[in-house]
Amino acid sequence: MHIGILGSGMVAQAIGQKLTELGHTVKLGTRDPRKLDEWLGKVGGGASVGRFADAAAFGELLFNCTSGIGSLEALTSAGAENLAGKVLIDVANALDFSRGMPPTLTVCNTDSLGEQIQRAFPDAKVVKTLNTVNAYLMVNPSLVPGDHDMFVCGNDAEAKATVTDILKGWFGWRSVIDLGDISGARGVEMLLPLWVRLYGVFQSPMFNFKVVR
Amino acid sequence: MHIGILGSGMVAQAIGQKLTELGHTVKLGTRDPRKLDEWLGKVGGGASVGRFADAAAFGELLFNCTSGIGSLEALTSAGAENLAGKVLIDVANALDFSRGMPPTLTVCNTDSLGEQIQRAFPDAKVVKTLNTVNAYLMVNPSLVPGDHDMFVCGNDAEAKATVTDILKGWFGWRSVIDLGDISGARGVEMLLPLWVRLYGVFQSPMFNFKVVR
Repeated sequence: MHIGILGSGMVAQAIGQKLTELGHTVKLGTRDPRKLDEWLGKVGGGASVGRFADAAAFGELLFNCTSGIGSLEALTSAGAENLAGKVLIDVANALDFSRGMPPTLTVCNTDSLGEQIQRAFPDAKVVKTLNTVNAYLMVNPSLVPGDHDMFVCGNDAEAKATVTDILKGWFGWRSVIDLGDISGARGVEMLLPLWVRLYGVFQSPMFNFKVVR
Repeated sequence: MHIGILGSGMVAQAIGQKLTELGHTVKLGTRDPRKLDEWLGKVGGGASVGRFADAAAFGELLFNCTSGIGSLEALTSAGAENLAGKVLIDVANALDFSRGMPPTLTVCNTDSLGEQIQRAFPDAKVVKTLNTVNAYLMVNPSLVPGDHDMFVCGNDAEAKATVTDILKGWFGWRSVIDLGDISGARGVEMLLPLWVRLYGVFQSPMFNFKVVR
């Protein structure tokens, strides 16, 4: 499948590499394509790099892996017409490091980044997921042994089913909990303040939550 | 031990009953003591009821089990002099139901209820814990089978050690994770938006989180 990945950081690179290993063709979109030269050399033929709009136009399926505080601008640059009708998997967190560590969120409680993106691009099928784990865990959940959970939410049931299949079939997630419509993004994005503190306690990002019942 | 419990709802009643079963003497503090007549009849001799200030003066150890949106007012009514020097276990969540379901928080992200209470009553030793689970689970974690975690945070290391002993020795928690100072209350209070959505998904409050690593 042709997949567009918006972003050039650790998350975009981890997802891009995994998808090429699975045989898909990916295009990463970024403001500065040349900074991915080294990554491209490592990943090989299944990957290419362009501007945000190039990646969005290329993909039948899209990942938003930009920094959350820049996601709306990046997606605007990608072009609403290149997002329309497509499943847009939003893995971003709107973390604000300007107040120091641990970071706060630029949107939460009565709104969320996932909802902002869905409102700004009503013709995209936004599904929020994967934002609650480290980049390497996103595409290889077995790096943390045992059972633990991934969450999905979004307004389009078919898009959520597609994303759940991707999480399970491509990335190896065994448990995916559907939180309902895109307002569930408030729940998973507001998990970050706890996540960053646990990262500090464990001195490692290799952990995840299991809902026990 | 003489223990003061601020609040009269499900959480105050569950904790009060458990503590009397353990042989402690508790006084619940509330604006309207007479509404606890039925509960008092059920619990028996180890419990009594009074105003907020009565309960706070009575307890060597205090629990804040008031509704989070009214906690600061209730604690002010309890009297700073009755809180000074004491461990104050804050289990409240500042949930705002006025916007409909699911509730939002009245404070989060750059502040928390736990921090507000610690700032308002600097001579109390505030420890935030138990706010991430249902009242029955608070005092009987084995109601959810298997391993799952409780969090504590607070500025006073000795107070946290006392509370951790209470959680483990009195209530039966096997795993207690120390998130650091009272600003960790942001993390555990901001878990509530996910918690209320999971409650909706499972149609049951009998679940808890396990940090898997």
